[in-house]
Order: sequence, then C-alpha cells, then structure tokens
Amino acid sequence: MIIDLRSDTVTKPTKGMLEAMIQAKVGDDVYKEDPTVNVLEERLAKMFGKPKALFFPTGTMANQTAIKLHTNPGDQVICDKDAHIYNYEGGGASFNSGVSCKLLQGHRGMFTAEQVVEAINPPDFYHSPLTALVEVENTANRGGGSCWDFEEMKKIKSVCNTHNLGYHLDGARIWNALVAKKETAKDYGNLFDTISVCLSKGLGCPIGSVLIGDETIMQHAIRIRKILGGGMRQVGYLAAAGIYALDNHVERLAEDHKKAKEIGQVLNELPFIKKVEPVETNIIIFELQNKTDEPKFLNKLQEKNIRLSGMGQGKLRIVTHLDYTDLMHDSFLSVLKAIKL
Amino acid sequence: MIIDLRSDTVTKPTKGMLEAMIQAKVGDDVYKEDPTVNVLEERLAKMFGKPKALFFPTGTMANQTAIKLHTNPGDQVICDKDAHIYNYEGGGASFNSGVSCKLLQGHRGMFTAEQVVEAINPPDFYHSPLTALVEVENTANRGGGSCWDFEEMKKIKSVCNTHNLGYHLDGARIWNALVAKKETAKDYGNLFDTISVCLSKGLGCPIGSVLIGDETIMQHAIRIRKILGGGMRQVGYLAAAGIYALDNHVERLAEDHKKAKEIGQVLNELPFIKKVEPVETNIIIFELQNKTDEPKFLNKLQEKNIRLSGMGQGKLRIVTHLDYTDLMHDSFLSVLKAIKL
Amino acid sequence: MIIDLRSDTVTKPTKGMLEAMIQAKVGDDVYKEDPTVNVLEERLAKMFGKPKALFFPTGTMANQTAIKLHTNPGDQVICDKDAHIYNYEGGGASFNSGVSCKLLQGHRGMFTAEQVVEAINPPDFYHSPLTALVEVENTANRGGGSCWDFEEMKKIKSVCNTHNLGYHLDGARIWNALVAKKETAKDYGNLFDTISVCLSKGLGCPIGSVLIGDETIMQHAIRIRKILGGGMRQVGYLAAAGIYALDNHVERLAEDHKKAKEIGQVLNELPFIKKVEPVETNIIIFELQNKTDEPKFLNKLQEKNIRLSGMGQGKLRIVTHLDYTDLMHDSFLSVLKAIKL
Amino acid sequence: MIIDLRSDTVTKPTKGMLEAMIQAKVGDDVYKEDPTVNVLEERLAKMFGKPKALFFPTGTMANQTAIKLHTNPGDQVICDKDAHIYNYEGGGASFNSGVSCKLLQGHRGMFTAEQVVEAINPPDFYHSPLTALVEVENTANRGGGSCWDFEEMKKIKSVCNTHNLGYHLDGARIWNALVAKKETAKDYGNLFDTISVCLSKGLGCPIGSVLIGDETIMQHAIRIRKILGGGMRQVGYLAAAGIYALDNHVERLAEDHKKAKEIGQVLNELPFIKKVEPVETNIIIFELQNKTDEPKFLNKLQEKNIRLSGMGQGKLRIVTHLDYTDLMHDSFLSVLKAIKL
Repeated sequence: MIIDLRSDTVTKPTKGMLEAMIQAKVGDDVYKEDPTVNVLEERLAKMFGKPKALFFPTGTMANQTAIKLHTNPGDQVICDKDAHIYNYEGGGASFNSGVSCKLLQGHRGMFTAEQVVEAINPPDFYHSPLTALVEVENTANRGGGSCWDFEEMKKIKSVCNTHNLGYHLDGARIWNALVAKKETAKDYGNLFDTISVCLSKGLGCPIGSVLIGDETIMQHAIRIRKILGGGMRQVGYLAAAGIYALDNHVERLAEDHKKAKEIGQVLNELPFIKKVEPVETNIIIFELQNKTDEPKFLNKLQEKNIRLSGMGQGKLRIVTHLDYTDLMHDSFLSVLKAIKL
Repeated sequence: MIIDLRSDTVTKPTKGMLEAMIQAKVGDDVYKEDPTVNVLEERLAKMFGKPKALFFPTGTMANQTAIKLHTNPGDQVICDKDAHIYNYEGGGASFNSGVSCKLLQGHRGMFTAEQVVEAINPPDFYHSPLTALVEVENTANRGGGSCWDFEEMKKIKSVCNTHNLGYHLDGARIWNALVAKKETAKDYGNLFDTISVCLSKGLGCPIGSVLIGDETIMQHAIRIRKILGGGMRQVGYLAAAGIYALDNHVERLAEDHKKAKEIGQVLNELPFIKKVEPVETNIIIFELQNKTDEPKFLNKLQEKNIRLSGMGQGKLRIVTHLDYTDLMHDSFLSVLKAIKL
Repeated sequence: MIIDLRSDTVTKPTKGMLEAMIQAKVGDDVYKEDPTVNVLEERLAKMFGKPKALFFPTGTMANQTAIKLHTNPGDQVICDKDAHIYNYEGGGASFNSGVSCKLLQGHRGMFTAEQVVEAINPPDFYHSPLTALVEVENTANRGGGSCWDFEEMKKIKSVCNTHNLGYHLDGARIWNALVAKKETAKDYGNLFDTISVCLSKGLGCPIGSVLIGDETIMQHAIRIRKILGGGMRQVGYLAAAGIYALDNHVERLAEDHKKAKEIGQVLNELPFIKKVEPVETNIIIFELQNKTDEPKFLNKLQEKNIRLSGMGQGKLRIVTHLDYTDLMHDSFLSVLKAIKL
Repeated sequence: MIIDLRSDTVTKPTKGMLEAMIQAKVGDDVYKEDPTVNVLEERLAKMFGKPKALFFPTGTMANQTAIKLHTNPGDQVICDKDAHIYNYEGGGASFNSGVSCKLLQGHRGMFTAEQVVEAINPPDFYHSPLTALVEVENTANRGGGSCWDFEEMKKIKSVCNTHNLGYHLDGARIWNALVAKKETAKDYGNLFDTISVCLSKGLGCPIGSVLIGDETIMQHAIRIRKILGGGMRQVGYLAAAGIYALDNHVERLAEDHKKAKEIGQVLNELPFIKKVEPVETNIIIFELQNKTDEPKFLNKLQEKNIRLSGMGQGKLRIVTHLDYTDLMHDSFLSVLKAIKL
C-alpha cells in the first residue's frame, strides 16, 4: 500500500467514474459536436450562473486563456506572491500573454482590497505597466488550502469596477472552498468575470478543467484554446468523468477536510515540528524545527511507502484526496506519531 | 446512417480500442508516472529511431512546440503556402513563438530544395528575419493528401545542414504516407530533427499526438508543453488508444486509400466537375465546373445524410477513414453517380 | 567624389537644416515638454487632417507601433509579398505584435481590393488567424518606387469598412507619391486610420519618422513607443530638421524623379540590361541580361566611386536623392553609357 | 529662473556640447558608416574592457535588448522590487522578451547574493519559470541614488557562474557610482556580461544610451535593435554629444553629489519632514511627516518656480544635475529653509 499525499492530482478514476467514461456519447469537439462535452459545459455555466463555459485539457490552459482574454501584452496582473499563475505555470503569463504580475505580500495567499488599490498603476503614467486584471486563488494552494473571506472578495470586486479591471478566479480548488464555507457556485459567478474550475484535483477526474465566464469576455476563448493547442476531438470521455464527479464527488470533500484536520492535530503535537499552518480544507503545510532534518524525515516516511511534497526551506505539504482511504489515514497517523528524528 | 466525410478526425473508438482504454494502467503524467503514456512514448521513439517522444493533447500543440523549440522570436520558418501550421493553427506560430512564415509557392503542398535555398535570408543582413527552420507536411492536407518524394526531402535536409536550419515534419498523416509509399518510420527519423505524429486522424484515436525528436532539441519540450497548458494527469487512457491503434489501425489505411481512389474515379466522370486532384492517399480534392453550384451540390448530398467540407472558391474536400464502411462507400458512390446539377 | 545611390537614407543635413537644428528650442519630450517636437507633431497632424501625431526615432518603430495598435497577437495583416513590414523590419511584426502576414501576389508592390477580399479569413473559423489590418506601402520600395492608384486605395478602404479591418499606410516615401501624382496629404488622411511618414529618406533629415492617426487608435501609441524604447529626451534637434525639410525639401523631390527617369532611359539602351521597371519616382529597379555579370558590373561602378544596391537574382536598385547633385548625375550617366561588360 | 529638480534627464546641451554636435562627421549608421558613432562605441567598449558596444536611442531600449539577449520567453529575471526594468519600462520585459521578474525585497534597491541563491528556481522543475538572468541597477534610482557594495556584486557574480545565469548591469547612473565610490569602468566590465550606460542623465546629452558587452552575447544586439526600431541613420550628432560628455562631464558629477548632500542636510532639519534617505550621489528621497501635506508643499515650491517629483505615499524625489547651478542651489536652499507648512 502506497500512501501518496503529494497532491490531490494523483487520484485515479473510481469504478463508477470509469463506467461513466466508457458509456459516454462522443463527437468531434473541434466542430462542437461532442454531446457530453456540451452537457458538461452547459451544466457548469448554469451552476455558476454564467452564459458560457469551455472545456480545457488542464487548469493551466484555462487560467492562461483567462489571463489572455483579460489583458494586452505589457499589461499587469495583480495577484498574491504565492499565486499558482505566477509560481507554477512555467512563466506562462509572460510567455503566452506578455504580461507581468504585480505581486502582493498577502497573508496565506490572500490579500485585501486596500492592497489592490495601492498596487494599481496610474493609467496615464505610461512608464508603468497598465494594470488590467486582479486574480484571486481560492482555495489558495501555497496558502495551505486557505479560504478567502467572501466580503473581502466583494470589496475587491468593487475596486475592479472603479478602476475598470478584470476579475478572475483561479478556482482549481473552489469545490473545497464551497464545501468548507458552505458557499454556492452562484455566489462566485456573481462576483467574477471568469472562473476556472478543475475536475482533476479534489473531484478525482483524470483530466480536465473548465473556464466559465461572461459572453463578451469568453467570445475569443475558443480561438485562444485552439492557438494554445487545446482543441481536442472526441473528448467526451473526459467530460463524462467530470459530470460523474459533479454528481458524486463534491459533498465528499468534507471527508478529505476532516482527515486533513486530524493530520494537522497530530503534527502539532510532534516535538520536531515548528509550526503547522491552520488547516481549513484538504492541504496541510507545516515546517520542521530544523530544516536540515527534511531528508531524514522524508526518508522515514518513504520507508513506510508514504510520500509528501517538499516546498523548500524546511516546509512540507500534505494533500488529502479521494484515493486516501480511512485505512491509509489510520496507518499514516500511527506512523507519524511514532517518528523520532 | 450519416456518412461523414468532412475529415478523418470524426472517427470514434472501436470496441477493441475502448476496451484497451478502460484497462489502461494510469498515473500522474505530470510527474511522468503514467506507465501507459511512458510505453507509448518509448514505442514511438523507437519506431522512428529517435531518443525522445512526448505525448500532446493535439497535433497543433505538438507542432507549435516543435516550432518553439527550433526558433527564437523574430525568426522565420520556411514552409509551403498551404501548410497547416500557417493556415489552420490559429496564427499560433506568431502567437506562441513570435515567428513568421516564408511561404513557398509549392505544388500540391510540396516544394523543392531549390526553392528552399532561394528562400533563406542572409544571416548577417539583419533587416530580414533570421531563417531558422524548414517545415514539411507529409501527407500534405491542402495538397490533397499528396505524398512527398523522399529524394527531395533528402535534398532539403542537405540544405538544412549547410545553412544550419532545423527540419521539422508535420506528420499528422505520416501513417498514410508510410502505407502508400511503403516507407518506414525510421527513414523519416533519420531525416528530420523533430516529427509530430497524430493518433486521432487515420489511426482513429479520440485524442492525441506525439512529438518525436533528438535529445538536445527535445530537452525543453516538456517545459513548453507545461507553459502551453498541455501537462495532463492520468492521460494513460488516451495513450492506450494510441498503442491499440499502432497495433491494429496502420495497415488498414490501405483500405481508406482504395476507397478514396474509387471516389476519385467516379468524380472524374461527373459532367459538373471540372477537376479532381490526383488521389494518393485518403483525401480527394475536387473542383466544380461552376463554383456557384456549391451550395446546391452540398445540399443534394446533405439530403442523403452525406457531409463534405467546402474549401472556398468552388473547391471541395472528401476524407475517407476508419468509420467510413464498405456499406457507406457503396451508398455514397451510388448517390454521386445519380446527382444532376 | 563618391556617388552613393544605394538609398535615399544616406543624405546628410544641408547647411540650412543644420542651422535650424542648432537653433531649436528643446525640452524633455518624455514629459512632452519639447516645444519643437510638439510643433512638428501638430504640423503633420494638421497637414494630414488627423487629430494626433507622434515622433519616432525610425520608420520601423512607427510602422511596428501602428501594427501593434491595430492588432492582437495571433491576428493577421494583409499586405503585399514585397512589403517593407514583411521583408525589412527584422521580423518585427511577429516579434513585437505576434501577428502573421497574409501575403498578396501584387504587381510592383501594389494589390487590388478584390485580392484583399479573397484574403480575409472568416472571423468565426478560428482555425485561421483573425484578419485585422490591411497595409499599403506608397510609394512601394521593392515595387520600384511605384505609385498606387488612388481609386484602388479607396476601394480597399471600403473593404476595410465592410469587414471591420484597420487600414495603415506605410508612407516612408509618401512625399514622393504626393509630388509625383499631385495628391494632397489630406487625401491620405481621409482614407487611412494610421499613416507613418519618414523624414530621413527623400526629405533629407538625419533621423525621424512620425505616426499620424485617429484619436482612439493613437491613444496607446505613446505607451507602445515607451515599451519599444522610443521615448527620447531633448529630441527637438531632430524635429527641427523635420520642420525645415517640410518647408524646403518636399517640392524639390521632382528633381530626384526627373533624374531617376533619365537614368532609366540610359539603362534601357544598354545592351547588357534585360529590363528596367517603369520609373515613377526616385527609385530605379533593373535587371542584368546575365545575372552572373552582377559582381563585374558593380565593380566597374565601384572603380568610379559609384555605389548601388544589389537585390539578389541579378536585380539592382538605384535611388536618387538630395545629395545626388547635377554634377554627379552627369558623371554617372557618362560612366553608365561607357560601360562594356 | 525655473529650478527643475524632477530628474537629471531635463538638462540641455551646453554650448560646448552643441558645438561638438554641429561639427560631427556623420554617415548612415544602419550601414555602420557613421564615423562618430563608431568612435563613441569603440571608446566605451575600451573603457569598460569589453569587445562590443552599441548605441541606442534610449536606456530603456538598451536594457530591453540586454534582457532579450540573455533570455528566452517564459524565463525569469531576478531583480530588486524597485528595479527600473520592472517599474518604469512600461512592462517591456514581458512585452518584448516574454519574461517575468522574480522580485527581491532588497534594501534601498540593493540585494544580497544570499537572496539571489534563494530566488533561483530549480532548472528541472518545469512548473517554475527558468531562472536566466540577474539584474543589478547601480546607482539604484528608487533606492535614492544608492551605491552598491562592490564585494556583494562580486559574490552575486559567483552565484551567476555557479548557476549559469547572465549578469546585467543597468548603469543608467553608473557614472555617479564611479565618481562617488572611486571605482573604474573596467571593474564593472570585469564583472558583468552586459552593461547599459546612459548619456542623457548625469552626463547631460540630449539623447542616447550604449549597451556594452561580450562578443557572443552581443552578437544579435544589432538585430534586436533593428526589430525594436532603434536602427537610426545619421546619428553621429548625438554620438558627438556623448563623446563630449565623456571628456567634460564625468568628473563634475562630484558637484551634483555635493549639492545633493547639502540639500539633504537642510531637509533633515525641517520640522515637517519625517525622514531623508541617506544621500550618496545626486538623488535625494525624503518623506513628509504628513503625507496629506504633499500638494501644499509642492505648491509652495511651484510658486517659486521650483519643481520636484512626487513618488506617491508622501515620498518626494529631488535630482541634482548639470543645469542646476550654484545660483539655483543657493536660492533653493533659502526657499526650503523658509517654508512653513
């Protein structure tokens, strides 16, 4: 038994999901003739109360397309210093859209409306990049699966309106936020111009993300997807997994959150651990007392077939997910409690 | 019964292929842990005699990545005026790589080594873009599925060597060329620096292309794929379809070619048809005597549930494929013979 | 005495122009406080009947900025295969704006409205780049200083209106066209959205081009100029040269044209010359009977301190200009007549 | 008498400089035939002990070209959060080169080798942008004209060597550092791969910057300059100003520094001023006790024809320069001392 807690992307389709995939009706989605893709897109659009949704092979492509739709080359995107779009998309914002990021020194991946106001460059001072977009990531991955305060996001929306800025949500793990905070998809649809949601993290699909947005802004989304190389053919097999996951895997995220909290509590009591970030959803970020102990600690877990992610500087990340069973959970907690460094 | 001859991309997986997909072993390919993807990549690399192969969601992304690997922004790519990379990838060469195309006036999508020599800009005359890459498409789609003369491709290789240019093959339909001309994949691997091959056209997979190439040039391929948003997770389901297709769907392309030739012969005898391009593989391009008859002609076919693609200017395209059965073929030929305009 | 006929860019300021430069009032143009630059910009805007004009260090930067203002990355620009923006700006259209060129097979650098219509890609077929801009170069450099038919440019304008395309004039040598065809700057201002004009070719300034255009399209011109690195400081010295040239060097272009015609006539009678393109302004393009004679021919001229430009394939170019005096003209014609190959 | 202390870019050529400009020998620099440009480039190359130097219309274009020469799209540049290339070049790094900046939280625009090491992304973790370049700005403009510690720059060089990173100096005000710290140009030439130096700030030229660097890295500099639109013609007039400035305006920067220090002392004693940053060269950055007093303070100076720059948040900047005379200095100090808010 391998216990893989590196990421919630490592899950494999359940039997039910695989069944749904096999039985999917498919067509050529480049001609928009794949019925299952069309159903998934319509369902998500409706769920978020938006007119348009478009299927993408990855969350990176969905985010990158959104950035492109909101900006012109040379523009600037306001986001947290820990944002996925800045740190983990290979430099795509500058490669694909020719834009830079104005990094905010947020708290656990989240920032305030006041910080946004201060970060906006004056539009007629052409020495500075033109500010065009504000991006929020909820839950914030490097923030430790932290959930944004909805009121703060509303204040930021108001700043965007005043300064004529786009407002994009990287909702790779929005499902975790919805479940943890008892919010609705429509709440988010009302607030943001574009929203990317991922089907292959907490929801357990093998592949796929969807970009949801307003009519005007989404007008060229399919063109950008084509240019980036995301115009796939009989992709209904993957869309079917998405539909299945929306039916079956959203509510159960609460279990991942419960397990994550329990792991956090155990970590908190270990003498060689300096700090555990607050656990709000399915991500636990913690720090070793002595960062030179990291290889030793990871080795001890590896011996028990347990895998985590190192984040550098003695920080480590654990992510719970659909394939992390109760049995694995008991075993992992026992192993943790027994570790001596 | 709908007879869809618009493209060989419209095929759906056969029962055997679907079976193979379901039973695929998968893993997180972003960590390069998907065993089925790894098998497919190794198999194709070996088949073409190259050290590296990488799976992509689309042929467009495989081609766009190859262009990026071979060029710097501002550089120029020599290709035919009818090349897919210039005409049908949404302007991706300039969007993704910042390069322009030097268009050759080829014959049926194919050009000569002499034309290449004339098109190379002097490297020290910096008013002109720097020539960096020669691209060949075989078979040539807009050329009517035409097959390149291997000796000419060798001469072009020699020009590339002399002028230090990259040499890329858009092999979206290379399988058709291999079968039609009895060439081997290794012949092509010896000649080109990079080769993209498509699994979802003649081979009948739902999705997928693979870029094959030399060690040095492929070094950053995975990074570019990530940036464009092509780094997928449990993608082994699609790779399994590819493996199945390599085992079962290559040799049978000869049947598509035979049917295409027969369609060509029937078209040639119709009084309202001006010209049928030579039929070498699975594509038939023909021209109406009177281009204003195009809607009428397409309507008459549509009434019989038969679909073709218009190419503008009274030109039309038919593509035979795995889902175009003998029954459909008989029916289509009968309908054609009976049409009066 | 060196007779330099390679280009009209080789001229040096006259005594009067240098005087005007020295006495220029200058200021920091980045703050828009250079009074001489402001006068030049206003004068040219008014001359072309447009609200805005902006000074640039080069014609390349003025053209590149115009392309950027009219397009988004991935878009396509319709222009002649011989256009300066495609051939001689280092690949800037793809580097700076991420766009490709749809090349028309024009005649002497000029094309028809009908050709434009055929070259427009359907806006909702996102496989093809989105057509965004039509570009005209008048006079056409590689066309041999040819002058466009004004009626044809008006027809093209109407096509642009119908298809919502921008319309840019590369007017590097528009002064030659105005003088040769007795047209006015306002005629052009009425027709085009943006116009670049060069001060350092026929007009004899050391440096400088100006982009003239409508309010909306020019709104971000100063920002793009800053990004490309064209925001200069006390640049009034160069603007003063421009003002002097507008006062003194426009009408005299007729002399350059007269000399060019006379050179053309002499060339036409030389036995070793195959063809002389029609001479309409200050450029003469001609072809040797035997292209292998090119080095010999250029050498014979070089011995007499006469310099021309080779264009490849046995074609040569002569450009008359402000520094090509009557004395040089007589001498050059005598040398030409005496050459034996 | 207007006392303009907004920037050292506002200076106008002295009588001697204007004389030198008029008498310059010029030629077409696009053909590299301008003798004065060639002399200036060779002189600066030799001064910094580098093989190559190239003239540019602006410092922005020189820096942007350097960034392009060192990077590929998607790469990352390590620089201070206050760097000119990040804040004041219009977003050019992402527009022209498609790169992002990894911002360091430095002190007064300067950072440490240790910070650089921490900021380097692992080259084989392709989720992160590839780190390619470290950029240093000396003196640091937003740091208040601060001068780097040479030993720290040497340590950073060693980090660059270890990690195979380029090393660029934005030397817009390097002349101020050389004079203030008694360093030599060759010290810098030994350390950096590329160096941009500005002729139009402290040195008092109307226009111009020069990029100096190693043979290999500079190989494509002239091509990039052409693409960005910086290939000018008879630009020797401006180069002559540069040569004059190197002969006459370097040593005198000590006077600007002395005046700046005296201004700093007076400011330090004013009751309404909260903080004056250390004054090391010709820039003084200070902060009002009460940031709402800024308009009032600027107005009181404006009434006396004195102009400063606001930097936002109650911070102000004064820059001394060639056109700031002793008389102005006395007058300004008197005005300052008399101000009551």
